[in-house]
Amino acid sequence: MPLTTASVRLHPRLGDPAGNLAASVAAIEAAGEAGARLIVLPELCTSGYCFADDAEADAACQPIPGPATEAWTALARRFDAVIVAGLAERDADGGGRRNSAVAVGPDGVLAVYRKVHLWGRECEWFAPGDETPPVVVTPVGRIGIGVCYDLWFPEFWRSLADHGAEVLAFPSNLTDAPPIATADHVYTAVARTAAHLTRVPVVVADRCGSERGTTWVGLALIVDGEGGVIGRPARDDDSPETVLATLPDPAPRTTDLSPWNDVVGDRRPDVLGG
Amino acid sequence: MPLTTASVRLHPRLGDPAGNLAASVAAIEAAGEAGARLIVLPELCTSGYCFADDAEADAACQPIPGPATEAWTALARRFDAVIVAGLAERDADGGGRRNSAVAVGPDGVLAVYRKVHLWGRECEWFAPGDETPPVVVTPVGRIGIGVCYDLWFPEFWRSLADHGAEVLAFPSNLTDAPPIATADHVYTAVARTAAHLTRVPVVVADRCGSERGTTWVGLALIVDGEGGVIGRPARDDDSPETVLATLPDPAPRTTDLSPWNDVVGDRRPDVLGG
Repeated sequence: MPLTTASVRLHPRLGDPAGNLAASVAAIEAAGEAGARLIVLPELCTSGYCFADDAEADAACQPIPGPATEAWTALARRFDAVIVAGLAERDADGGGRRNSAVAVGPDGVLAVYRKVHLWGRECEWFAPGDETPPVVVTPVGRIGIGVCYDLWFPEFWRSLADHGAEVLAFPSNLTDAPPIATADHVYTAVARTAAHLTRVPVVVADRCGSERGTTWVGLALIVDGEGGVIGRPARDDDSPETVLATLPDPAPRTTDLSPWNDVVGDRRPDVLGG
Repeated sequence: MPLTTASVRLHPRLGDPAGNLAASVAAIEAAGEAGARLIVLPELCTSGYCFADDAEADAACQPIPGPATEAWTALARRFDAVIVAGLAERDADGGGRRNSAVAVGPDGVLAVYRKVHLWGRECEWFAPGDETPPVVVTPVGRIGIGVCYDLWFPEFWRSLADHGAEVLAFPSNLTDAPPIATADHVYTAVARTAAHLTRVPVVVADRCGSERGTTWVGLALIVDGEGGVIGRPARDDDSPETVLATLPDPAPRTTDLSPWNDVVGDRRPDVLGG
């Protein structure tokens, strides 16, 4: 069944968890009212990013389940939707702070993913994940989850696709580049390539704004399973925006590229390893 | 040292090897006179592509060294350049016909690469290669070589980059899409991503024209090591064109992306295998 999908660009504020959660709730409500049943929010969307010290990083974290996932569950129930969002997690199982993403459905948290490839100073604030990234069975399909820099690793996309993901959702905080709603940014090329080479749609939800000298790209992108961009921001500025697009019926994944070619079956581990 | 590079778009004609070789010679002469020292030509540029039967495929093949590589060697000597080009090879070591690419320098053939990932009906005409793709030490740097569909396999780019390639050259015949000199085609995204994720420049030289119902994209593309397009066709039509761009000094390859990140060192085989 076609899947109306939202990529939500938000502007989290350091030290304002209540305001950030309220902004996420308002954006999810608007997306749900517009018919979205898969709603993807940025990485660390409840906390902001550029922590000054351990105390700030600690204050940014919350347990899962916790306040954010409870609010999102209520919205998932109201709109019969699935929400994928990033947040700073206080890991009750040990491991301290995590840069996590959750999939939340009408009945609560479906999965927690802890970011495997940490970017920049994240390694000072978060312990890296060390589990295979999840493909989550949800009411809207099998959703593969990664966070931001994970997208730089083709083996990450392939793991999700080869484990049956029908959509890849990447909450992100894409730093260190000029804002690009409409420009032909290389990050767009990377997301399109992940989709084209796996034959699975990719949704990237980046934040906007700046903090302590760091600026984000603001990439809200929905890419179909051939690598075509079907949703991107209408405005080429640095403000929050929700991008909506309808993904075609995702199942079954087809990796045939021609009557003679299959982009999975054509791999040559005998020559190239892996 | 900065490297002036040419990606040559040609229109080979089935059954006209002499005309095709002459067209390649004219294009190389023009690129050499314009200062190019790395000149990349399309896949199967001496033969055309859509063979009707074994007899046509046999007639398309030539040995290496042979007429084409001898002509190209003379030009490489004249311009102190390196030429990377695709041709149908009659494999003297056995294996019959090969879809090959050569690197030719002033002293002759430096390497022969036999395409590992065959596309479409190529499997009916050619035996696949089964050797690790070559990184060729040349007077203009270490050149990694692949052909067309090889670009769809990230482990292929990585093999070349991890073995020290400073430029990746992909003679190509990119089929089954509308012509695109200037449009934002997903094939451009794939080439940019290969460069961005390896931090090595990528040169794609595609053919143009059509044969027996098959049309090529005509993608002549030069991408720097960050994934930025620095050369693409000026004309959005279906005619031969040579694209020139100067790659910055390629050495040393830098895979650091931030003070905390290395796109090679950050791989997590413990989590994702490979």
